[in-house]
Amino acid sequence: MARHIRLNAFDMNCVGHIQHGLWTHPRDRSDEYNTLGYWQHLARTAERGLFDGIFLADILGVYDVYRGSADAAIRNAVQIPLNDPTLLVPAMAAVTQHLGFGVTANLTYEPPYLFARRMSTLDHLTGGRVGWNIVTGYLDSAARGLGLTVQPAHDSRYDVGDEYMEVVYKLWEGSWEADAVLRDRAARVFARPEKLHRIVHQGRHFTLDAVHLSEPSPQRTPVLYQAGSSTRGRIFAARHAECVFVSGQTRANTRGLVTDLRERAAGFGRDPAGITIFAGATVVVAPTGAEARDLLEEYRSYASVEGALAHFSSSTGVDFSRYDLDEPIQYRPTDANVSALEAITTRSAEPWTLRRLIDQMVLGSRTRPIVGSPVEVADELQAWVAETGVDGFNLSRTVTPESLEAFVDLVVPELQNRGVFKTEYAPGTLREKLQGPGRAHLPAEHVGASFRKV
Amino acid sequence: MARHIRLNAFDMNCVGHIQHGLWTHPRDRSDEYNTLGYWQHLARTAERGLFDGIFLADILGVYDVYRGSADAAIRNAVQIPLNDPTLLVPAMAAVTQHLGFGVTANLTYEPPYLFARRMSTLDHLTGGRVGWNIVTGYLDSAARGLGLTVQPAHDSRYDVGDEYMEVVYKLWEGSWEADAVLRDRAARVFARPEKLHRIVHQGRHFTLDAVHLSEPSPQRTPVLYQAGSSTRGRIFAARHAECVFVSGQTRANTRGLVTDLRERAAGFGRDPAGITIFAGATVVVAPTGAEARDLLEEYRSYASVEGALAHFSSSTGVDFSRYDLDEPIQYRPTDANVSALEAITTRSAEPWTLRRLIDQMVLGSRTRPIVGSPVEVADELQAWVAETGVDGFNLSRTVTPESLEAFVDLVVPELQNRGVFKTEYAPGTLREKLQGPGRAHLPAEHVGASFRKV
Repeated sequence: MARHIRLNAFDMNCVGHIQHGLWTHPRDRSDEYNTLGYWQHLARTAERGLFDGIFLADILGVYDVYRGSADAAIRNAVQIPLNDPTLLVPAMAAVTQHLGFGVTANLTYEPPYLFARRMSTLDHLTGGRVGWNIVTGYLDSAARGLGLTVQPAHDSRYDVGDEYMEVVYKLWEGSWEADAVLRDRAARVFARPEKLHRIVHQGRHFTLDAVHLSEPSPQRTPVLYQAGSSTRGRIFAARHAECVFVSGQTRANTRGLVTDLRERAAGFGRDPAGITIFAGATVVVAPTGAEARDLLEEYRSYASVEGALAHFSSSTGVDFSRYDLDEPIQYRPTDANVSALEAITTRSAEPWTLRRLIDQMVLGSRTRPIVGSPVEVADELQAWVAETGVDGFNLSRTVTPESLEAFVDLVVPELQNRGVFKTEYAPGTLREKLQGPGRAHLPAEHVGASFRKV
Repeated sequence: MARHIRLNAFDMNCVGHIQHGLWTHPRDRSDEYNTLGYWQHLARTAERGLFDGIFLADILGVYDVYRGSADAAIRNAVQIPLNDPTLLVPAMAAVTQHLGFGVTANLTYEPPYLFARRMSTLDHLTGGRVGWNIVTGYLDSAARGLGLTVQPAHDSRYDVGDEYMEVVYKLWEGSWEADAVLRDRAARVFARPEKLHRIVHQGRHFTLDAVHLSEPSPQRTPVLYQAGSSTRGRIFAARHAECVFVSGQTRANTRGLVTDLRERAAGFGRDPAGITIFAGATVVVAPTGAEARDLLEEYRSYASVEGALAHFSSSTGVDFSRYDLDEPIQYRPTDANVSALEAITTRSAEPWTLRRLIDQMVLGSRTRPIVGSPVEVADELQAWVAETGVDGFNLSRTVTPESLEAFVDLVVPELQNRGVFKTEYAPGTLREKLQGPGRAHLPAEHVGASFRKV
C-alpha cells in the first residue's frame, strides 16, 4: 500500500497571506477573515476533504523593509491587519470532529506559564486536536512592539527557545500525574494533591515555581510543529518538532532539507520516519488543464507584485526597491533573516536581479503554483513526495474559499482513487491520527517525555 | 417606566468557582468545563434569558494559604484546575447573537501589544460583544508562576495598570483612523497608510513603537469592567471602568461602595449614571418558597466548608486553619489582599471567629444565597436595586447548569411581568446595548477617548 499523503490547509488570520493581491478578485472572501462564519466554513470544507489540519501562521510586526516603510504592506493588506490565530480554533473545533489545528505562537514574547495554560485549554476544548507551530520570531518591528530596541540575536533566540521548551514540557508532562484527577463525587475528591507537582525551574532565561493550572489534556504536549530552515533552526526542529514545514523552492533543495532533518532527528535518538514533513504548495486546479491555465491567468490579473515585494523584502532584509530591474542584487545576511537568505543562496546559481524576481512572482509570491487538471496536480504532488521524501503539503490559498473547495472536490478524489489519500479519518487525537492508535502522548524517546514524573 | 435590571451569568473556566463542593451534586455538570458543548449550552441558556452577558473570572495561581498548602484547593477543585477564559468566547459567540462576554485578564503579565490584538480579535469575531474585566492580580503564587519572587506592591500595580491602559488605549483608539480601511478592490487599496499611526510610547513601565496589528473592531476599546474594591482600586475603576462589579456583603455596605464609585467617576468628568454597577448574587429558586428552601438544603449537603475556607484564606491572606472555632481571628492586612480585608473590616462589628465564618458559608462560600419563589427572589433583587443603587447582578452558579436554567425559566418572566427586565435585546454592540444606540465607542469624556487621532 502506498503511503498516504498528508494535507494541511495553510492560512493566517488576515487578508493577504502568501499570494498577495488576490483579495481584489471579485470572488475572494478573505476580507471576511474577521468573522466566525468565514472560518467555520473553511474548517468544514477542510474536514469534508479529510485534511489532517488547518495550519495557522502568525507574525508579530509589520513588513517595513521595502521602501523603508510599511506603506506597501498596508495598502496591499500584506499580513496587516492581522488578528490572533488561537481564537479561531474553538469556533472551528465546534463545527468539526477530526480536523487538527496547527497554531503558530512566538515563544519570545509570551510567559511560558500562561502560554502552557492557553495550549492546554485548546487541547481540552478540541478533544486533543491541537498542534503548536513554534516560532522564535524574526521581525525587528515585532521586537519594537514588545518594548525591545532590537531583536535578540538569531542563535540566542533558539537557546532561549530550548529553555522555554524545557519549562513548558515540565508543565505539560511533569506537573500532574496520570492518575491525579479522580472526579470522585462520592469521596468528594476531585484531584489528589500528592499527585500534583510544583514545577521549580531556575534557569538562565526563566524562573518558575508553580503547578500547571490545567489538568492533563488529551495530548498533554500539543503536536509540535516547526518551520525553521536555518542550520540552528533545523537543529531545534530535529530535537523538538514532530511535524516540520519545509519551504525549499525546488525538489532537489527540498530533498536536501528533508534528508538533513531526518538525519539530525536520528542523532537525537528519534525515529526519523516519525517526523511528518510538509512542503509548501499552491495549487490552481480545474476539471481540465486548459481550464486550470485560464483560471491561473484570471487569478494572475489580480496579483500584486508590490505586495509580494513588500513581503519578500522583510523576509530577506533586502529592500528590493533600491535596485534597477537588471542590476545584480547584493545582500548581506543579517541575523534577523538568515533562514530566508540561506534559502536564496542555496537556490540561486546566477546573479539575482529584480526582473528575475518579479518574473517568479506569478501569483503575488515567489511560490510557483502547481496548475492543471486533477490528474496533472496529483501527478505533480506524487512526484514531489517521491523525489523529496516529504510526507505531504501545506496548501496555501489563492482565491478563497474557492481554491480549497476546488482542491477538495477535484484533487482529493483523484488522490483517493490512486490509493494515496485516506478515505476516512483515523480515530483519536491529532497525534494518534499522525502516529497511530494509542500514541496520544509524546513518544518515550522525545526530549519532552523525559520531564514526566511517572 | 422602571429602570431595567442588568444580568450577567458569573462563571469561570473551572469546576469550583464560588460555591465550593457543589460539583459533587449528582446533577452538577461543572466537571465538563473542558468541553465546548458545556459552554455553548450555557451561552444559549443565558441568551434565552436575555442576559446581558457572561462574565468570566480568572486567576493566575493557586489558593495555598490555608494550612500553608494548595492541598485543600486541589482536593475540592477550588479554581484549580483552571483553564484560559478567552478561548471560550469564540465558541459561545458562534451560537449566540446578542450575548455579551466579559473576560477577565490580568494586565500584570501580558505585553500590551499582544493583549490589545487578542481583545481586538475577540471584538471582531463577536461582532462587538466583548468586555474586559481589568485585573491587576493578587496572588503571590501567580507571581511565582510568572518568574517574580513576590508580587509588585498593591498600589504600584495600579500605577502600572494606569500606564498599561494608556498603551492599549493608544493602540485601540489612536493607531487606525476611522476611514483608514477602504477594502476597495477596484482601486486595489485595502487600507490607506497615511491613516495609520505608529504608537510611540516611552513610559516608566512600557516602551512601544508599533502600529496596532488589528484594524478597528466594532467597539475598538472593549467594554471595560473592573472589580477592585480597595480605595486605590476604586480610583482606578472610577477612571477607567464602564461596568463595575461590587461585592459588598450587605445592602448598606454596597450602597456606600456605589455612592463612592459614582462620586469618584464624576470627579473624573464622567457621567456617574453611565457606569453600570453589578452586585454579586446567588439565587436558589423553585416554583414555591418551600420547594426553594428544600432545594437549598439539598444543595447544602454537597457544599464544602474546607473548599470555602481554602478560597477565603487566600482572598484575605489569613490561614483560618490556625484558629480554634471560638478564638478571635487576628489579621494583619497585607498589600496582596487589602481589598478583601477592607471589605471584612467595614462589614464586621463584633470579633471574628471561625465558627461565625463557617456559619456564613451556607453553600460553600461566604455569599448568602437569595432563596425563594420567583416572587420572593424578584422582591429581593428589586429591594437590592432600590436600596443600593446597583444596576444589576452578576449571578454566580450553584448546581450548574440547572441554577441558570431555573433562573431563566422562573425569575426572568417574573421580572418581565413587573416591567423591570427587557423583553428583547437592544440592537448593536455590547456598549450600545448598555449605553444606547450609536454609542459603540468610548464616550468623549472617557480618558481612553483622548488618545484618538481624529
